[in-house]
Amino acid sequence: MDAMRVGIIGLGTVGSGVVKILEEHADLLARRTGRTIEIVKVAVRDLNKPRAVSLPSGMVTDDPMSVATHPEVDVVVELIGGLKPARELLQAAIEAGKHVVTANKALLCEHGPDLFPLARDRNLCIAFEAAVAGGCPIIHVLSQAMTGNQITAIQAILNGTSNFILTEMYHRDQPYADAVKEAQRMGYAEADPALDVDGTDAAQKLGILVQLAFGARFTPDQFIVEGLDTIELADLQYADELGYAVKLLATARLVDGALEMHTQPTLVRHEKPIAQVDGPYNMIALEGDAVGRTWFSGMGAGQMATASAVVADLVDIAVGRAQLTYPHLTLQSSDPAIKLHPAEGIERRYYLRFNVEDRPHVMADITHVLGEMEISIASVIQHEAPEPDEVSLPGPPIVPLVIMTHRTTEGQVRQASAKLAALKCVREPRVCMPVSD
Amino acid sequence: MDAMRVGIIGLGTVGSGVVKILEEHADLLARRTGRTIEIVKVAVRDLNKPRAVSLPSGMVTDDPMSVATHPEVDVVVELIGGLKPARELLQAAIEAGKHVVTANKALLCEHGPDLFPLARDRNLCIAFEAAVAGGCPIIHVLSQAMTGNQITAIQAILNGTSNFILTEMYHRDQPYADAVKEAQRMGYAEADPALDVDGTDAAQKLGILVQLAFGARFTPDQFIVEGLDTIELADLQYADELGYAVKLLATARLVDGALEMHTQPTLVRHEKPIAQVDGPYNMIALEGDAVGRTWFSGMGAGQMATASAVVADLVDIAVGRAQLTYPHLTLQSSDPAIKLHPAEGIERRYYLRFNVEDRPHVMADITHVLGEMEISIASVIQHEAPEPDEVSLPGPPIVPLVIMTHRTTEGQVRQASAKLAALKCVREPRVCMPVSD
Repeated sequence: MDAMRVGIIGLGTVGSGVVKILEEHADLLARRTGRTIEIVKVAVRDLNKPRAVSLPSGMVTDDPMSVATHPEVDVVVELIGGLKPARELLQAAIEAGKHVVTANKALLCEHGPDLFPLARDRNLCIAFEAAVAGGCPIIHVLSQAMTGNQITAIQAILNGTSNFILTEMYHRDQPYADAVKEAQRMGYAEADPALDVDGTDAAQKLGILVQLAFGARFTPDQFIVEGLDTIELADLQYADELGYAVKLLATARLVDGALEMHTQPTLVRHEKPIAQVDGPYNMIALEGDAVGRTWFSGMGAGQMATASAVVADLVDIAVGRAQLTYPHLTLQSSDPAIKLHPAEGIERRYYLRFNVEDRPHVMADITHVLGEMEISIASVIQHEAPEPDEVSLPGPPIVPLVIMTHRTTEGQVRQASAKLAALKCVREPRVCMPVSD
Repeated sequence: MDAMRVGIIGLGTVGSGVVKILEEHADLLARRTGRTIEIVKVAVRDLNKPRAVSLPSGMVTDDPMSVATHPEVDVVVELIGGLKPARELLQAAIEAGKHVVTANKALLCEHGPDLFPLARDRNLCIAFEAAVAGGCPIIHVLSQAMTGNQITAIQAILNGTSNFILTEMYHRDQPYADAVKEAQRMGYAEADPALDVDGTDAAQKLGILVQLAFGARFTPDQFIVEGLDTIELADLQYADELGYAVKLLATARLVDGALEMHTQPTLVRHEKPIAQVDGPYNMIALEGDAVGRTWFSGMGAGQMATASAVVADLVDIAVGRAQLTYPHLTLQSSDPAIKLHPAEGIERRYYLRFNVEDRPHVMADITHVLGEMEISIASVIQHEAPEPDEVSLPGPPIVPLVIMTHRTTEGQVRQASAKLAALKCVREPRVCMPVSD
């Protein structure tokens, strides 16, 4: 039986998972491809580190470039992440005539414009199901199953770590810092979870989905990207009281021919499917002009879910599907006809929370500012101030005020926020989150 | 640009939708395939019937066989449904060297064993994304995106009509008959909705998914298939009181190496994703040994969702993907190693409802029967009987009794039901539904 020979760069969590599947499901994979999938060479950073999988010693090297360019390797699987040296390795692999499978969304986001055409010009493919929503085959769905549709909207939870943190906070009444610690303890968050919780990771993944769905390339510096850092447990509780969950939503949708795009903590009505996704799961809600609304959900990360995505790509290459699909993906360039909707003009409802002094005329001052900006108030929550003896600061007591607006623009809300911040009666924290339609 | 030439048999709702997509998205499809997709010939039953789409008059015929075997047709799309003459048409098309796209689950369920190898032996393919869960690309997912997994369980809502009826009953407090009428008015149910509500349609679709996921062929006569006909509004209300929704669930899962398979109205805890699928939507919850739990949801039927699935298949054939995928699908034979778990031995919790006489010793009689069968009671609902003057019949008042059991077997429950039916104090209706884990 004809063998497909694989080189793997990176034998961490996901790499070990890939080796495990290729070994344990060798028969199954042979039936599904008509070929054997053989691991030829594996690169690790530290040859002496103990591994979860055992490989023949001659198979393992600490020279990743020797795997990328190995004459007996047909496909290079890159699982080290980061930009350097991943970029050089993939470029060398492609120049040496290898197909590439990668889980590296940062790399695709940053260097896709160089690497994608490099592969296509050589009749090779770059497969990256594992780069977005490991347990949820959204790349296959967009590239193959929705081809009869003009995609009109993507709304997604793309970062499992953030979703786990929000779920922990909400269900266990935990402050943000404790939920982050729990995510680290469970292995969902890195020691430095910055890229997960600041929205960058989700925004990079959204960029990849947008390129496939709309044929246009936008990077996180071009659209609104906000993280969880301003969100407190109190916001989840107020949102709940108003009938909403808070989710870190990555959104792209066509509005009057322009693309509205943002990654932000967002209020979503409890009864919507995306509000009900808990823990380290991802969900992508996709709208097509023919198919209507669809939802896809699976683990956002984790060893075996991501490994499953890598192996699906290997199977596609072994069968020859990926080579047929890749040249037709809209990865090679950005369609100049697709413009980003200016952030200032994006229209939504908003949730505002700030602390205010609990004294006469405060509500009048605040509503005056909103009225001046033509922002209409949909609902207000202000609970009674605590008893005076519980308040330690001098001056009028400080109470939280929550306002839900009617539809307005991002620009108007930003201006109103700046004006409100200048009021003497308004104090930190000031939270502003959009509300999903 | 190289053209792929298509013949369409059936220009009803879905057929018109396919024509619409091929016309409106001609440019998009050309970009995604590198070819044009051209309609060459279309067969209708009645040439004089007005159509939603206009086609050149020479293109339309009332002789479907002339389309199936047309020398200029590369791919035949069959959208007439039913077994006759669909089977003869597809066989003729394959024998004439055409690829086939079909939405006909009944045909695949009944005649798949003849048609599937016929196509493979001629290096042709049969594509059928539209046959199961139109708006949800579950065939693509199982055939391509989950290939690194041994699928361990499928739990699915596969009949949009039934789900719409259950949703109407539950949310509008409507009796079954009124909900069926509403489904007909909305176009979700046929004038004769028998195959939708008796579970046959969902069971046929489950058979197709099982063949792809487990490589074994089982037909609805071989496993438990129950419909909505015994369910009353009261059952949805009691289930709700107990914390459950009622869904027509199609289930297949590996238990100790054997396949447990059934299509039944089933109690599902409200917080589970599949309990929250409302209206004419489908959902497939899929478990793989690597990927873990995944969920896929979209419209269960409807013109454009199903047409979207047909066009995705056409694109796959135009690109050449389908031809590579088809030979590796486990459709050609049934794996003799995969056995069905005997229905009697399937272990679950159960919901039982019957009317009982409201007099001393009745509960003792009933619990004695259950005790004899070693069925342990988890919870009981018996509300107070109505005031005597509201009861028109002579004799003791009749009250509904609802019992939730602990885990027991289908065989024990069936025996217990027969014994309970024989008790003088137990009256019709008698409802028995399993509870999903």
